Amino acid sequence: MIRALEPRDRDHWQALYRGYQAFYGHDRAPEFYDKAFARLMSGDARDFQGLVYDDGGLLGLVHYVFHPNLWRDEGVCYLQDLFTSDQARGRGVGRALIRGVYDAADAAGVPNVYWLTAEDNYAGRMLYDRVGQKSPFIRYNRPL
Amino acid sequence: MIRALEPRDRDHWQALYRGYQAFYGHDRAPEFYDKAFARLMSGDARDFQGLVYDDGGLLGLVHYVFHPNLWRDEGVCYLQDLFTSDQARGRGVGRALIRGVYDAADAAGVPNVYWLTAEDNYAGRMLYDRVGQKSPFIRYNRPL
Amino acid sequence: MIRALEPRDRDHWQALYRGYQAFYGHDRAPEFYDKAFARLMSGDARDFQGLVYDDGGLLGLVHYVFHPNLWRDEGVCYLQDLFTSDQARGRGVGRALIRGVYDAADAAGVPNVYWLTAEDNYAGRMLYDRVGQKSPFIRYNRPL
Amino acid sequence: MIRALEPRDRDHWQALYRGYQAFYGHDRAPEFYDKAFARLMSGDARDFQGLVYDDGGLLGLVHYVFHPNLWRDEGVCYLQDLFTSDQARGRGVGRALIRGVYDAADAAGVPNVYWLTAEDNYAGRMLYDRVGQKSPFIRYNRPL
Repeated sequence: MIRALEPRDRDHWQALYRGYQAFYGHDRAPEFYDKAFARLMSGDARDFQGLVYDDGGLLGLVHYVFHPNLWRDEGVCYLQDLFTSDQARGRGVGRALIRGVYDAADAAGVPNVYWLTAEDNYAGRMLYDRVGQKSPFIRYNRPL
Repeated sequence: MIRALEPRDRDHWQALYRGYQAFYGHDRAPEFYDKAFARLMSGDARDFQGLVYDDGGLLGLVHYVFHPNLWRDEGVCYLQDLFTSDQARGRGVGRALIRGVYDAADAAGVPNVYWLTAEDNYAGRMLYDRVGQKSPFIRYNRPL
Repeated sequence: MIRALEPRDRDHWQALYRGYQAFYGHDRAPEFYDKAFARLMSGDARDFQGLVYDDGGLLGLVHYVFHPNLWRDEGVCYLQDLFTSDQARGRGVGRALIRGVYDAADAAGVPNVYWLTAEDNYAGRMLYDRVGQKSPFIRYNRPL
Repeated sequence: MIRALEPRDRDHWQALYRGYQAFYGHDRAPEFYDKAFARLMSGDARDFQGLVYDDGGLLGLVHYVFHPNLWRDEGVCYLQDLFTSDQARGRGVGRALIRGVYDAADAAGVPNVYWLTAEDNYAGRMLYDRVGQKSPFIRYNRPL
């Protein structure tokens, strides 16, 4: 049910990713999705990869990237985007997608996977506390 | 006073970086420093870069890397390691090093800089609140 | 539907309060409930008061107390316990109980109401973010 | 060096407490201090008590109150205000004041002492982490 994102997923993927962007308050132009999909399909191992939960229709997506870490030769895996459709809620789709990233990370020899989430993303954290481990680390940004 | 890390900095850099690792409770083998320094000197624009605060002697270091972000074509800049020597405390060294990364990020066309810190790193956060902006994002890790 | 706790509520109140204590991992002796109920029924304006959500059966309870605050002559109102039965979820019972405390506090001339909750009480916080306001204050305890 | 606040401390107490109020951004009218001091001197065991650190001059103050808690017959002790003068920093004054409250709480048979502090009160938390224990509890307020 978890499989790599493919070119034929374009429309369903965009519908899901638009929902994710809306969750964070973003209304993106079509070009945003064009670029993101092109990158996900580029085959560049240093750029983002996508997985989907396919149950006949697409119920969820996850995007991740490997990037260097000075403490670890093999680098780390950053899970940036995770989203499931409303009808997928409570069916283990989010959990399966995260585990899909764990498997992909293992296959790449990069076992360390991390993600960031808003402190008040309660629904997300209910899942993350089961499948991941909260760290004491918080994010600071350059003010722009 | 802020300048790129250079091969001649090897010994002083290692003394500083050992202090940083000790702050996080790590006692690293010499090979850890060999590898890290080699990467910092590799010239690979996709791997880590280093800056130092040089006031005759080295008073501080910072390591950063550019990595892809699916939301931004130009990617983001991750500031992983920041450390200043005890004698540098209160002299603006940490602030200057962070600003050095901001400048490097601007020069690379990657204005977004972020870093992670432990929630109870009070001394660090006193600085970070002045030069950066706390986000509501917290880090989750895959349990290993 | 919100009304003061009454002597006839003893059994249903205890069933609810036992559920609340279980949520926090406590298995209390019967005396715990005897004492708590006696205090709630004592009529002492300086001790705890109870409200229930009565919809034929009791669907929820809340306990609160007024206590001095050096910054405010009139003191403050501390909402200590809030619990709703499983069958009450999603029916606005928790919200109505908190509003019941707000009304009682207004009637007592003590408009400031506060409560504490575990940072990872996600279900609770979904409600609290709608009816209350998260403060930046965290609790420290004497180590015992 | 830790002793109960006394009537003769009025002026020095007010200077310290004004500093504390300023720390939280408050510029209080004289009546605020009149009322607070009168309450601290009232002898009412249910209202606030004060301790000072006296080293010839007053170097710090702490205010606390006992209030009911439905989970504990003996109630709890709330430490509301803690402040030390600038010249007292680094001399263990804050720690001694907190321990003074612990002792007073023990003498009253109310061993549980707690306080609240802003998440970003770094200087305070450096002390609190040594003498107290951070809980996972955060404070919500009624929006007024």
